Amino acid sequence: MVSISPSVLAQLEGQVIELPSWAFGNSGTRFKVFGTPGTPRTIQEKISDAAQVHQVTGLSPKVALHIPWDKVEDYSALREFAGDKGLALGTVNSNTFQDDAYKFGSLTHLDPKVRQMAIDHHFDCIDIMHATGSADLKIWLADGTNYPGQGDIRGRQDRLAESLAAIYARLGENQRLVLEYKFFEPAFYHTDVPDWGTSYAQVAALGDKAMVCLDTGHHAPGTNIEFIVAQLLRLGKLGSFDFNSRFYADDDLIVGAADPFQLFRILYEVIRGGGYGPDSTVAFMLDQCHNVEEKIPGQIRSVLNVQEMTARALSVDRTALTAAQEAGDVLGANGIMMDAFYSDVRTDLAAWRESRGLPADPMKAFAASGYQAKIAADRVGGTQAGWGA
Amino acid sequence: MVSISPSVLAQLEGQVIELPSWAFGNSGTRFKVFGTPGTPRTIQEKISDAAQVHQVTGLSPKVALHIPWDKVEDYSALREFAGDKGLALGTVNSNTFQDDAYKFGSLTHLDPKVRQMAIDHHFDCIDIMHATGSADLKIWLADGTNYPGQGDIRGRQDRLAESLAAIYARLGENQRLVLEYKFFEPAFYHTDVPDWGTSYAQVAALGDKAMVCLDTGHHAPGTNIEFIVAQLLRLGKLGSFDFNSRFYADDDLIVGAADPFQLFRILYEVIRGGGYGPDSTVAFMLDQCHNVEEKIPGQIRSVLNVQEMTARALSVDRTALTAAQEAGDVLGANGIMMDAFYSDVRTDLAAWRESRGLPADPMKAFAASGYQAKIAADRVGGTQAGWGA
Amino acid sequence: MVSISPSVLAQLEGQVIELPSWAFGNSGTRFKVFGTPGTPRTIQEKISDAAQVHQVTGLSPKVALHIPWDKVEDYSALREFAGDKGLALGTVNSNTFQDDAYKFGSLTHLDPKVRQMAIDHHFDCIDIMHATGSADLKIWLADGTNYPGQGDIRGRQDRLAESLAAIYARLGENQRLVLEYKFFEPAFYHTDVPDWGTSYAQVAALGDKAMVCLDTGHHAPGTNIEFIVAQLLRLGKLGSFDFNSRFYADDDLIVGAADPFQLFRILYEVIRGGGYGPDSTVAFMLDQCHNVEEKIPGQIRSVLNVQEMTARALSVDRTALTAAQEAGDVLGANGIMMDAFYSDVRTDLAAWRESRGLPADPMKAFAASGYQAKIAADRVGGTQAGWGA
Amino acid sequence: MVSISPSVLAQLEGQVIELPSWAFGNSGTRFKVFGTPGTPRTIQEKISDAAQVHQVTGLSPKVALHIPWDKVEDYSALREFAGDKGLALGTVNSNTFQDDAYKFGSLTHLDPKVRQMAIDHHFDCIDIMHATGSADLKIWLADGTNYPGQGDIRGRQDRLAESLAAIYARLGENQRLVLEYKFFEPAFYHTDVPDWGTSYAQVAALGDKAMVCLDTGHHAPGTNIEFIVAQLLRLGKLGSFDFNSRFYADDDLIVGAADPFQLFRILYEVIRGGGYGPDSTVAFMLDQCHNVEEKIPGQIRSVLNVQEMTARALSVDRTALTAAQEAGDVLGANGIMMDAFYSDVRTDLAAWRESRGLPADPMKAFAASGYQAKIAADRVGGTQAGWGA
Repeated sequence: MVSISPSVLAQLEGQVIELPSWAFGNSGTRFKVFGTPGTPRTIQEKISDAAQVHQVTGLSPKVALHIPWDKVEDYSALREFAGDKGLALGTVNSNTFQDDAYKFGSLTHLDPKVRQMAIDHHFDCIDIMHATGSADLKIWLADGTNYPGQGDIRGRQDRLAESLAAIYARLGENQRLVLEYKFFEPAFYHTDVPDWGTSYAQVAALGDKAMVCLDTGHHAPGTNIEFIVAQLLRLGKLGSFDFNSRFYADDDLIVGAADPFQLFRILYEVIRGGGYGPDSTVAFMLDQCHNVEEKIPGQIRSVLNVQEMTARALSVDRTALTAAQEAGDVLGANGIMMDAFYSDVRTDLAAWRESRGLPADPMKAFAASGYQAKIAADRVGGTQAGWGA
Repeated sequence: MVSISPSVLAQLEGQVIELPSWAFGNSGTRFKVFGTPGTPRTIQEKISDAAQVHQVTGLSPKVALHIPWDKVEDYSALREFAGDKGLALGTVNSNTFQDDAYKFGSLTHLDPKVRQMAIDHHFDCIDIMHATGSADLKIWLADGTNYPGQGDIRGRQDRLAESLAAIYARLGENQRLVLEYKFFEPAFYHTDVPDWGTSYAQVAALGDKAMVCLDTGHHAPGTNIEFIVAQLLRLGKLGSFDFNSRFYADDDLIVGAADPFQLFRILYEVIRGGGYGPDSTVAFMLDQCHNVEEKIPGQIRSVLNVQEMTARALSVDRTALTAAQEAGDVLGANGIMMDAFYSDVRTDLAAWRESRGLPADPMKAFAASGYQAKIAADRVGGTQAGWGA
Repeated sequence: MVSISPSVLAQLEGQVIELPSWAFGNSGTRFKVFGTPGTPRTIQEKISDAAQVHQVTGLSPKVALHIPWDKVEDYSALREFAGDKGLALGTVNSNTFQDDAYKFGSLTHLDPKVRQMAIDHHFDCIDIMHATGSADLKIWLADGTNYPGQGDIRGRQDRLAESLAAIYARLGENQRLVLEYKFFEPAFYHTDVPDWGTSYAQVAALGDKAMVCLDTGHHAPGTNIEFIVAQLLRLGKLGSFDFNSRFYADDDLIVGAADPFQLFRILYEVIRGGGYGPDSTVAFMLDQCHNVEEKIPGQIRSVLNVQEMTARALSVDRTALTAAQEAGDVLGANGIMMDAFYSDVRTDLAAWRESRGLPADPMKAFAASGYQAKIAADRVGGTQAGWGA
Repeated sequence: MVSISPSVLAQLEGQVIELPSWAFGNSGTRFKVFGTPGTPRTIQEKISDAAQVHQVTGLSPKVALHIPWDKVEDYSALREFAGDKGLALGTVNSNTFQDDAYKFGSLTHLDPKVRQMAIDHHFDCIDIMHATGSADLKIWLADGTNYPGQGDIRGRQDRLAESLAAIYARLGENQRLVLEYKFFEPAFYHTDVPDWGTSYAQVAALGDKAMVCLDTGHHAPGTNIEFIVAQLLRLGKLGSFDFNSRFYADDDLIVGAADPFQLFRILYEVIRGGGYGPDSTVAFMLDQCHNVEEKIPGQIRSVLNVQEMTARALSVDRTALTAAQEAGDVLGANGIMMDAFYSDVRTDLAAWRESRGLPADPMKAFAASGYQAKIAADRVGGTQAGWGA
């Protein structure tokens, strides 16, 4: 029906969707983690897989690291390795949930020694960022409690503020701290950063280099996520996205898979609020678990979903929309949004992709490349990467 | 088992739970509003009913007004009328959801004339507050949209900030503005103040006299409300409570009826965070709908529920709790909370009530008073009060 | 990209989406019901409005009645009136929630006199059905309680079974009883038919002419509705749909507005399970509230949404899908579904519509017809229809 | 205030709450499983720990097994071992979620070979039941899909019915099959037995020896679980409970910890519906994860919670309740429920416990026993038991 306008295509140039290194390793639920032939054993193999995604989509020139899962001796060498594959190293994700010391908290722990241990881990991450050239330190905390009374909610919040201040003070000139929030899991009574309000209040107290990270799967049922996007952009505190999708909890499914219309509305508010394009510092990243589907194609599908939906969201006729809103024309205004959402941008994007030297159908191109068969044959022995140190 | 300690009883002295005038009128759902014999027709009759609640409980010396539902010619006379009944007039609640002009918003409306009309209504409320001696102006907004695209989420938020600033500037020396948030209803796609984060960000931008109002029924399923209490107290922005309870949405049932343990946890965090007692400015208020139960007994039951649960929450052995937390004794810490929760404070409270010249059993005392039969006989003709202007 | 195949177009022939008479009257929330110029005052005016929807879409040759809202002296005359407008009278909806007698229940009430009154009302509805030629008696119960202990859950269930049996026994040869379930509202502690399991258990005990009615807005957050569709079709008990959409609770928004992908999945399972087409007895109906949007266009938009999504769901390549499922190709199988969902069927449908003598753009055609202006001018005085007797 | 009546105490005699063997092993979330000193390495050590719970509470003479986690060579010997510790072996739980073959389903799998493998596993379980003297085979299925299209919902349901029929046919005279349902997890798009309705429809098709198992953590947010209890008892199909509690999803916390009032209401409906006492076949079982708290005390706390709440539920004055319901006295009826709930039964239960030769305070008695220190010292080396084969 509608074809994508040249101006929209121009805005799609330069879109970057960062890939998480751990999406290429195994993941699962508390019940079972399934392995698959070809799963990488090292961060180098993860980077090689990520390079495949970028090669067929042109959308993902960056890979995020998770420390300690991706620990290496020489981060400059790793940066070079990635560079040779056409990739930069992106966000560094800290981990304070897999050491026995953190059973009752990390940055919020009652014991100053444990807190310092967790702070030191973030100092290490910052050191790594200097070596890798990463700009963002992402903090997602598993801190929380399972039973009323187990911890002192208020005291933990105060200690969190202190710990974050210590980490913040260590940031380099061009480095940022992004603080993720999560409704629940792995803690089941309270989490120490459960909602955007808490993340916002904490980073606002830190300073300009501290921002909120919004993971699309970390909200209560029914939450209007695009409202949060609009609000955080308004407050100047939207730092980055962890994209994925969910039907129930933090399902970590492929972005756009569970509720494509929600993804459309989120991207519309990102654009509306100035969070998209060369002048924005909002980072787009995936954070997903390919428990039952193939991992590399899963990542390809994901970045394409974001690109296609960005094209739709950019196509909203905002002049007409404003006019309909001013006229109190509810159905007309809604219709303008739906027109963009229902437009099938795929043919135009395929042609545009080809015009830029990329395959029209990246999924098919990867399948035809033989890469999957090759790694399945090559990667024998060793320990498949997963969510373990 | 445990008897209430004298120190806890001392802290119960002076507890005030404000009653909403509208709780004595009819309410219901979109499907049906049931009337009952004796329902008040005027604000004076509502105040008379409220006086009954205070008379048997000693807990509710204040009645909140809702404008325009409780509009009168002479507010000084109303204040005197209430005074004669032993009551003060409390929070003034504005209403920007029942005029046809507000179909697409009030303080957030695109049309500056409608916004000014809504602002003017709040100016009127402030004038009334001067006459009634009320300290708090409570703003709950029905503003929002039903369909994506119907309104511009971001622009509405900016206009809300401007409108609130105009109202804030009009506040007297000792007056406060409390901004309520609500997850959904009557708007179904987005509400303009959906969560504590939004209310907090808006009131923080206004100044010290602007605070957040927490209605216990206005959250997403599964939300940890006591966390929000702890956080708002920490940020110095918890202004007041609208107490009620819910199983599903904003059911407006009797406080403590749906999840008594949640009420206990909320009150514990109030106390823990300094939100209770003579030095606190946090206002306790009910906001409920007695759709199928008797209204005056419904209010009596409600204030007793809050008092009983406050007694339990005050009884938590916080020294022992801290020790258990420091020892990492999860079950011990939780057990200390549960001990207080499971303590049956009712016998002790009955005796204490009697010692202060109040009936041991307020529910029975009211039933025996004959008041209900009297108003059923007297209040014939006229229009029963409800949620209408 | 994909154009609609002739076989799909053929299957779209004869699709019927019944309109609810009350969608043309005013509706709202407990906070406010907005009126609009041109709102019908009588069932005849509602039918006239419904005829407009059918005229521009060819999709809605039936109007459902709600008794007593649509009570008339002479139902044969009403049937004729509708026939003259090109419409048949459809489902008769009973109402046991607006009489004071039903405050504590209707078919479940403890008092046999109240139960009989409710049963008699259904007998009246059956009589009306004979006159109108309606096939389905739809029962949605507001029965339930607000507080634990208020009623005896188990006893109410037993009485419900008895009452339904009495009604069932009165059904004519070609009449059906469809029993709707609803998670909550207007009751807030328990509802007597809260889930499909209860409705199924009750209708299974009645016999072949009793079926389940699935209202898409009547489920707990996160419920997989298409699973219920598949299950009820498997059990031979899916009688009819009440289509609408929701973000939070029973929002009653335009079908497909809140989660278009969910509507797609629901229609896919309908088709997959044999619930679509000339051999199926599953009735498609709307049940919506146009609180803030225009009513006739709201209905036009709704039936078009169902038609467009049916076209997409019919377009799923089921042979390829089965092959992908058999191969364990998760992304491939999901991709086949998404291909159909993302196909823009609107151009093809517009052409097909024109080929059948209908306007290509029904929304525009209605706007251009001048009907709205005419009824706004004509329908002056009287009482606008709404949710009242 | 109220003391427990002799008749209630008499009804508490003989209460049995079965313990799950796996509650004594390690468990956690997908993020981390914490180990603790003294965790059992074998089923014998698990049984020894379970015996401690029964020793101090007199409530848990049965231990449930999970196959293959608790596989041994000689089940008669295991039965004898348990008998020596004063315990019987209870429900046998099958496991079809940890074999790579089950990635896309077990009893629902498209491949008949995989289905047969899963059926055979249940045959093995039945064989074990004969040796252990167990009456119930519990089936909880992880079967489901993560993405729309991944599987054929309808076909899977049909295959499930076939597989269950094969298993059912193998049951011995006095053996039962109980089918558990679960809203979500580990599958995130659809689960094959998501709700009580599905479990009911499936077991009703099997016959009298097939029943529903209700796990209190397996429902959508806001679900009224006691309604389901009442309904299943009414339909004669409530087989057993898996008790635990949750704030968000399937948190598997200690029963009664998250919402004690809900547990009260559930137990009230159990009693009301005839599901409690010597004439009932409803089995009470725990199914919990002690991720951060001590395991043996966690189980002691759990069975005490069930016992205390049963005492409260048995104490409801049902004659007065019925009278209040008949009088339409909403607050009176609710007050009768709350009176029982708020009664502090703990002192009376402690005395009663002592009168039966049990410790007044089982938690303290276990702590004083030195058992925990002993197993921490003894159980060195080996592999701590957890959720693995």
